Amino acid sequence: MAREYFPGVSAIRYEGPDSKNPLAFKHYNPKEKVAGKSMADHFRFAACYWHCMKNGGGDPFGPGTRNMPWNTASSDPMGVARDTMDAMFEFLTKLGVKFWCFHDRDIAPEGRTLAESHRNLDQIVAIAKKKQIETGTQLLWGTANLFSNPRYMSGAATSPFPEVFAYAAAQVKKAMEVTHELKGQGYTFWGGREGYDMLLNTDMKRELDHLGAFLNMAVDFKKKIGFKGQFYIEPKPKEPTKHQYDFDAAACHAFLMTYGLVNDFKLNIEANHATLAGHSMHHDLEYAASNGILGSIDANRGDELLGWDTDQFPTSIYETTLVSLVLLKHGGFKTGGLNFDAKVRRQSVDPVDLFYAHIGGMDAFARGLKIAARCVKDGRIEKLVRDRYNGWGKDLGKKIEAGKLDFTALEKIALSSPEPEARSGRQELIENILNEYI
Amino acid sequence: MAREYFPGVSAIRYEGPDSKNPLAFKHYNPKEKVAGKSMADHFRFAACYWHCMKNGGGDPFGPGTRNMPWNTASSDPMGVARDTMDAMFEFLTKLGVKFWCFHDRDIAPEGRTLAESHRNLDQIVAIAKKKQIETGTQLLWGTANLFSNPRYMSGAATSPFPEVFAYAAAQVKKAMEVTHELKGQGYTFWGGREGYDMLLNTDMKRELDHLGAFLNMAVDFKKKIGFKGQFYIEPKPKEPTKHQYDFDAAACHAFLMTYGLVNDFKLNIEANHATLAGHSMHHDLEYAASNGILGSIDANRGDELLGWDTDQFPTSIYETTLVSLVLLKHGGFKTGGLNFDAKVRRQSVDPVDLFYAHIGGMDAFARGLKIAARCVKDGRIEKLVRDRYNGWGKDLGKKIEAGKLDFTALEKIALSSPEPEARSGRQELIENILNEYI
Amino acid sequence: MAREYFPGVSAIRYEGPDSKNPLAFKHYNPKEKVAGKSMADHFRFAACYWHCMKNGGGDPFGPGTRNMPWNTASSDPMGVARDTMDAMFEFLTKLGVKFWCFHDRDIAPEGRTLAESHRNLDQIVAIAKKKQIETGTQLLWGTANLFSNPRYMSGAATSPFPEVFAYAAAQVKKAMEVTHELKGQGYTFWGGREGYDMLLNTDMKRELDHLGAFLNMAVDFKKKIGFKGQFYIEPKPKEPTKHQYDFDAAACHAFLMTYGLVNDFKLNIEANHATLAGHSMHHDLEYAASNGILGSIDANRGDELLGWDTDQFPTSIYETTLVSLVLLKHGGFKTGGLNFDAKVRRQSVDPVDLFYAHIGGMDAFARGLKIAARCVKDGRIEKLVRDRYNGWGKDLGKKIEAGKLDFTALEKIALSSPEPEARSGRQELIENILNEYI
Amino acid sequence: MAREYFPGVSAIRYEGPDSKNPLAFKHYNPKEKVAGKSMADHFRFAACYWHCMKNGGGDPFGPGTRNMPWNTASSDPMGVARDTMDAMFEFLTKLGVKFWCFHDRDIAPEGRTLAESHRNLDQIVAIAKKKQIETGTQLLWGTANLFSNPRYMSGAATSPFPEVFAYAAAQVKKAMEVTHELKGQGYTFWGGREGYDMLLNTDMKRELDHLGAFLNMAVDFKKKIGFKGQFYIEPKPKEPTKHQYDFDAAACHAFLMTYGLVNDFKLNIEANHATLAGHSMHHDLEYAASNGILGSIDANRGDELLGWDTDQFPTSIYETTLVSLVLLKHGGFKTGGLNFDAKVRRQSVDPVDLFYAHIGGMDAFARGLKIAARCVKDGRIEKLVRDRYNGWGKDLGKKIEAGKLDFTALEKIALSSPEPEARSGRQELIENILNEYI
Repeated sequence: MAREYFPGVSAIRYEGPDSKNPLAFKHYNPKEKVAGKSMADHFRFAACYWHCMKNGGGDPFGPGTRNMPWNTASSDPMGVARDTMDAMFEFLTKLGVKFWCFHDRDIAPEGRTLAESHRNLDQIVAIAKKKQIETGTQLLWGTANLFSNPRYMSGAATSPFPEVFAYAAAQVKKAMEVTHELKGQGYTFWGGREGYDMLLNTDMKRELDHLGAFLNMAVDFKKKIGFKGQFYIEPKPKEPTKHQYDFDAAACHAFLMTYGLVNDFKLNIEANHATLAGHSMHHDLEYAASNGILGSIDANRGDELLGWDTDQFPTSIYETTLVSLVLLKHGGFKTGGLNFDAKVRRQSVDPVDLFYAHIGGMDAFARGLKIAARCVKDGRIEKLVRDRYNGWGKDLGKKIEAGKLDFTALEKIALSSPEPEARSGRQELIENILNEYI
Repeated sequence: MAREYFPGVSAIRYEGPDSKNPLAFKHYNPKEKVAGKSMADHFRFAACYWHCMKNGGGDPFGPGTRNMPWNTASSDPMGVARDTMDAMFEFLTKLGVKFWCFHDRDIAPEGRTLAESHRNLDQIVAIAKKKQIETGTQLLWGTANLFSNPRYMSGAATSPFPEVFAYAAAQVKKAMEVTHELKGQGYTFWGGREGYDMLLNTDMKRELDHLGAFLNMAVDFKKKIGFKGQFYIEPKPKEPTKHQYDFDAAACHAFLMTYGLVNDFKLNIEANHATLAGHSMHHDLEYAASNGILGSIDANRGDELLGWDTDQFPTSIYETTLVSLVLLKHGGFKTGGLNFDAKVRRQSVDPVDLFYAHIGGMDAFARGLKIAARCVKDGRIEKLVRDRYNGWGKDLGKKIEAGKLDFTALEKIALSSPEPEARSGRQELIENILNEYI
Repeated sequence: MAREYFPGVSAIRYEGPDSKNPLAFKHYNPKEKVAGKSMADHFRFAACYWHCMKNGGGDPFGPGTRNMPWNTASSDPMGVARDTMDAMFEFLTKLGVKFWCFHDRDIAPEGRTLAESHRNLDQIVAIAKKKQIETGTQLLWGTANLFSNPRYMSGAATSPFPEVFAYAAAQVKKAMEVTHELKGQGYTFWGGREGYDMLLNTDMKRELDHLGAFLNMAVDFKKKIGFKGQFYIEPKPKEPTKHQYDFDAAACHAFLMTYGLVNDFKLNIEANHATLAGHSMHHDLEYAASNGILGSIDANRGDELLGWDTDQFPTSIYETTLVSLVLLKHGGFKTGGLNFDAKVRRQSVDPVDLFYAHIGGMDAFARGLKIAARCVKDGRIEKLVRDRYNGWGKDLGKKIEAGKLDFTALEKIALSSPEPEARSGRQELIENILNEYI
Repeated sequence: MAREYFPGVSAIRYEGPDSKNPLAFKHYNPKEKVAGKSMADHFRFAACYWHCMKNGGGDPFGPGTRNMPWNTASSDPMGVARDTMDAMFEFLTKLGVKFWCFHDRDIAPEGRTLAESHRNLDQIVAIAKKKQIETGTQLLWGTANLFSNPRYMSGAATSPFPEVFAYAAAQVKKAMEVTHELKGQGYTFWGGREGYDMLLNTDMKRELDHLGAFLNMAVDFKKKIGFKGQFYIEPKPKEPTKHQYDFDAAACHAFLMTYGLVNDFKLNIEANHATLAGHSMHHDLEYAASNGILGSIDANRGDELLGWDTDQFPTSIYETTLVSLVLLKHGGFKTGGLNFDAKVRRQSVDPVDLFYAHIGGMDAFARGLKIAARCVKDGRIEKLVRDRYNGWGKDLGKKIEAGKLDFTALEKIALSSPEPEARSGRQELIENILNEYI
C-alpha cells in the first residue's frame, strides 16, 4: 500500500462560510448550482504537477526549501517518479480536484538518451492512466518541457540549430502521444524560450517561420493520430528570455493568423503573464473571447510591484469576479478549465500549505462566481453599458453598422447635426455597484 | 514681410565634428553619401507642427512656459494660425528639414461649427501649399486630431455614440482631402482615445468592429479621391486612455489582419510608444519589418524609469544606430520618413532650444547611420549571426525549411543523433564589437 | 441666496447595505462605533478643493470636460472664486464630510502682483472662515501651490534662482497665515517640482540644502505666529519632475533627519505616490508608523499597470482594510485625517459623479474598517504573527534584544546548537483568513 | 602544477583602439594617466567569485549551462574549492585585474556543521592568502552569504527566529575574521533576504531593530579585532524578497542614521539595484556622494524593460561616462573600487566568454573615464551649471545661504521685486555637448 504523504489531511469538504476550519471549503461547493451550472462544471479546476510536486521553492538566490518527501524517499529517479505520482493523486483526491496538468519531464525523468526518456515516460504514463481511472481524474492538458534542458537554451522550435528543432519535434510528438493515451482534453504549447535574449544575434523572421512550421507539423500529427483535444498556445511576454514571441494575446493572435493556425489553436491565458505584458487579466481574457480564441486559463496572480512571474495563488475576489464575468458572458469553458499554475511561497515549507493555497484559490473563485452571477442577475451594470451604446440601435447607428454610410454621407450628417451630447461614462458608479455585490 | 521669429538663428550648416558651434551640424551633412545614398534620403527628416509650434510645455501640474511669440502676437485665432505657419516654415527652412507633419487642428483653429472648422482649414491649407512650393518642403503625412476635443473623450471611431463616429468620419474626410491637396506622402491614424478607461463599461468587440469599419471607409474614400499616399496606424499602449487598442506593433498587425486591412496600412512606429508597451524600439521596428508593415518612424525617446510618454529628443547613439541598422537591412524608407515627434523640456523656454533639440537629434541619427554602415561593411556581427544559423543551410535544416520532414521523420532523426552541441550566443562579444564602431 | 450647484442631490444619508440608492451610504454610518470610536472619528474624512472644484479633467491630450458651473457663471476671477466656495461648501455639507483641504491658488486667483494675490486670498479666506463656522466644517490642512506657475518650473525652495526661493517663501508665509486664520489642523508641503528633470544641469546637494533651510524657516515662522497645527511633507517619487527629492517615506525620513526636522514634521502619505515609488501603500504607512512619522493620509488609488498618478478613488476593500489595520494598530489619527486626493475620471462629466465617487470611497473605507476590526478582534492573524516571533520572548531572544550577547557569544551558541528548525511563514493561510473577514 | 582552465587565453594586453583582437583591451591601459591618475587607480577593478566561478547560468526555468571545468573535475567539495581558487586566480592574472571579492560560501563549501564550515573556510583562505601574495592581488571586500541556505529563508539578522540571528552572527564573525586575515579593504553587508515577502506576517519595526543591533555588534567586533577595512551596506529594493529594507541609497541612509551607524558604514551601490528601485545609477551615486556615504560600486547594468536583476555587463558608454563624472567630481575611490557584479548570459557557455565580458566592461569604463575627463577639462557643461546657479553668489542668494533672511524678510523682498525671469534649463544643449565628447 502506498505511503501517505499528507497524513494530517483528510478529504476537504464544503463546510460553509461560517466554518473556521482552515482545511475546509467555505464557498466552493462543487455540486451547488450557480447560474444554472454546478460550480465544478463552471471551473473545471485543475492542479499542476510542476508546482505542486516538483517546485521546491528555489529562486535565483537559493535552493528549494519545501518538505517534499515524495522527492527524497527513493534514491532512484524512476522510484521518485512513482512516489510522486502517488503523492499527486493523493493530493488531487483529498483536495477534490478532478483535473490535472503536467509536462513530460515533470512526471518522468529525462534519461541518458531520448529513447530512454521515451521509455521512462511510457512507464509512468501507464501508472497515471490507471490512477486516472481509479480516481475519476481527467487530464486537462499535457505539454512538453522545451525550456529547462540546456539544449533548449536558445529556444526549441526557434533554436538557431536544426538539431534542436528536431529534438523538440521528437519530444512534442511523444508528449502528444501520451496526452492522447491519457485522453487529455487539450495540449498546450508554452514557448518558454521561444524568443530572444538579444536581437542583434537573432534572425527573428526566420525563427518565427520555424515556429509556424513547427506548429503546423503538430497540427498534422494531431490529425494523423486522431487526437481530438484542443491545442493551446500560452502568451507570456518575457522571463526567462528577454522577449518572448508569444508576448500577449494579441501577439499570439497575429502569429496564428500569419501562419494559418487560427482555427487550430486557442489561447491558454495566465493572469501573471497578462500583467507582465501590461494588461489586466480581464483584458487578455476579453480580447481572446472577442476574437474567438479563448480556450483555457492558468489561474494565479502576480505582484504588480514586482517584475517577474511570482505565480502566487489567486485570492483577490475582485480578480476572480472579473474572470467569472468573462466566463459567464462568453459561455464558459468547452475543453478548457481553470488550472492553478501557482506555487506556494518559499517560506511555506509544510505539505499542508499546498492545501491551504488551493483551498484559498478555489474559495476565491467560488465567491467570484457567485458575485458575478449576482451582478449578471441584478443587471444594473449591464443596463448602464447597454444604455451607453443605445445609439447603435437607433437609425444612425444601425446604418453605420450595416455599412450603408460612407465618409461622404457621414460628413453630410455631421455638418447638419448639433454637437454630440457629452454623456458620463459612470466609472465611479459602476465601481460602487460592483462593490455592492461583494 | 513676415516677422522673423527666430532672429538670432541663421540657416544651420554642417561644420563637421570639430565645430563647437551649438547651432551647426557636426555630423548631419545632408548630401554626404553613406552606404550609397545621401543622408537626407536615408532619413527624410520631418518636424512636427504640434510639438514645435503648439506645445507650450504644459503638464498635468502646470501650464505652458515656452516663449512662442507666434501664438501671442495676434488676438484672432486665424491670425495666430497664419503667424504660426510663418514661424513653422521659417523654422523648417533655417533647420534645413524638408518634410513636415501636422494635425488638422494644429494648423487651423476649430470653429464654432464643423463647417467653419472646414473653412478655417481650407484657408490655412492654401497658405501652406504656397509655402511648400516656395521652400521646397513636402508633407510627410497629415492627420486629424480625434482626441483633444471633449466630444472625443470616449473615443472617436470607437466612441459609444454614433454621432461622434460620424463627426470623426467628417473630420478625417476633410483631413484626407487637405493632405491630398498638399501632396502628402502619407496619412496617419493615431487612435489617441481608441481604447478604454474601464473595461466594465466598454463593449470591446463592438468598438473594434467599429474601428475596423471606419478604417475600411477611409480606404474606400482614399480610392475615391485618388489619394496615393500611404496609410499608417501608430501603435501606442496607453496614455491618455488606460488601454489603447493599437497597443503595439503586434496588436496592430492582428487588428489589420482581422479587419482585412493589412495590405492598405503600414505602421508608423514611435520609440517611446514601443518602450511603454514593454518593447525596445529595435523590437517593434524589426517585428514590423519582418512582417512587411514597417512604414514610417516617429523618432523620440522615453525615459524607461518613467511611465509616461516623455517624447524627449533622441540623442542616444546606441538607439540611433539600431534604428539605422534596421533601415539598412530592410531597404530604407519608401513613402515614410523620420518625424521628430519630440518636444523640448518644459524648462527649455527659449525659441533657440527648439533648434538645439533638432540639431542634436539629427546629428545623433547621422552618427548612428555612419556607425551602422561601418558595422554592415565590416560584417563581423553579421558573420557571427550567419554562422549561428548555418545549420539551416545544411542537409537537416534545408529539409525542415522545405517542409520535407514531419514529426515522425524528425523523431527518427533525433533518436539516432547525438545530443546537440551547445554553442555560445556570444552576446558579450557582439556588444563589444558594436562598441568598436562607435 | 446662493445658487444651488448640485440641485438633484440632497444630504447623503446612511441607508444600510441593502439600499440600492446610489446616493446613499451603505456602510459609512458616521456615528456608528467600531472598535470603540465612531467611524467619523476614525477617518476624519476630508475632501480636496483642487480636484473637486478646479480639476476639469484635462490631460496631456485634451482639455477639461466636466460640467462645473461654478467656474463659468462669473466672468470675473474673484466672482468665480466666490461661486466656487459656495459650491464647495454645498458639496461638503451634502456629502457630510467635516474637513477640507486647499492650496492657496485653488481658492483665490493669482493676481498681477504678489500683493494682489495676497489680497485676493484674504478676501476669500474671510468667506471661507464664515462658512466653516456656519457648517461646522474644519480645515484639515492648507498648502501653497508652488508648482503650477511657470516661475516654479525649476522648483521653488530648490529653484536654481534665489528670487524664486524668496517668492516661494512669501507665498508659504501667507499660506501658513491663512491656514492659521482658518484654524487649520495642519499644513502640508508637497514638493511638486522640488527635484530635477536632468541631473547633469542640477546641483543636487545645494538644492537639498536649500530645501532644508526653507523648511527650517517655516518651523521658525510657525513658532513666531503660534501656529499649533502639524507640519507634513508628502512623498512622491516623480511626476511632474523626473525625480523628486521626497521620493518615498524613507527618503523623506532621511531628509528630515539630515536637516534636523524630524521632530517638526510628519508624513502625509498618498497611496498612488507609494505605488509609483514601488511600494505598497501598506508599506509606506507601516514604515512611517514604525518610525513615528505617520501623520495623515491622501487617500486614492493608482493603476499599477500605468506609470502616472491616476488619482482614482479608492474602492478596493483589500486596500481600505490594510489602511484600517495600520490605523487600528498605531492608534489612529491625531491631527491628520483621510483626505480624498482623488479625481473623477475624464468621462465622468456630471456634477453627480463627484458624489458617487466620494460615497464609493467612504463606503469602501467603512467596510475596510469593519473588516479590520473583525480581524483584530478575532485575532487569528495576530496570533500567527505572535507565534512566529515567539522565540524573542524566550531566553536567547530576550538576551539578544537586551544587548547582552555579542558576536563572540553568539558564535558559541550557534556552534553548539542544532540547525534552526524551518517554520512555515503561512502566507497562503493568512490570505485565506483575511478573505474570511471580507 | 595547476591545470590551466583557460588554455586558449594568454594575458590580456592593451592594443589600442584599432585592434580587432577580441582578447585585447582597446581602451583600458592600466598605467595610462587620465586626469592625473592611472586608469588602474581610478577604477580599482575587481572581479567577483560568485558570478565568475560559481554561477552556471541557471535561471528559474532551467539549470546552469556554462562549461566550468573547475566545478566538475573533482568529486570532493573541498577539491572543487581548491580547483576553483586555481581557476579564479588564473582568470584574475590573465585579465590583469588586481582585486577580487567573495562570499564565504563561494570559496569553501558549507559543512555538515557550522564548525566544519569554519574549518573548510580556514583551509581555503590559507590557499587564497598565498595566491594573493604570489599574484599581487588584493581583496576589495569579503562578505557572508546569508541568503542561500534555507535557514535564511525568512531573513538572517531580521529572521523571526533568534536561532537564525545567532547563526548569522557566527557566520559574519567568521567572514570578518577571514576578510581581516586576507587584508580585505572592506567588508560588505548585502541583506538579500532582510525584508519581507508579506507584510501581514511581519513585525517590521522589530526586524529593523534587530538589523540595527546586528550591525552595531559588527561594528563592535570590528574594533575588537582591529579590522580597519570599510563597512558597506548595499541597497536593493526587491528580489529575492518582495521588499528589502535596504531599498535604495536614501532608505539605507535613513536606516544608518536611525541606528547610529552613519559614521561606520558607506554604501556599495549597484547599477541594476538602483534602476530596480526607480533611480538612475547616476542618481544613487550622486545621492550617496552628496551625503558623504559613497563607498564602492558594483558595476553592471540591468534591462529597464525587465523587472529583475539581470546583472549584465556594463557596456553603455553613456553610463560609464556618468559614473566616471561622479568619481571625478567627488574625488574617486578611497577603500572602494569597481567590482563587476555581472554575469555572462546563459547562452554564453564558453570559458572565453568570461574574458569577452570583462574586457568589454573595462574598455567601456576606460572610454567613459576619458570622455568624462574631456567633459571636465572642456568645462562647457560645468559652466552652464555654474551660470544657472550664479544667483547664489550674489547678494540675495548669499544672504539666504548664510541664514540671514527669514520668511518675513523674504516676503518683503518678494513683494518689491519684479517677477523672476524665466531661464532655460538647456537640457537639449547639454545632451548635445555630452555627445560631442563621445
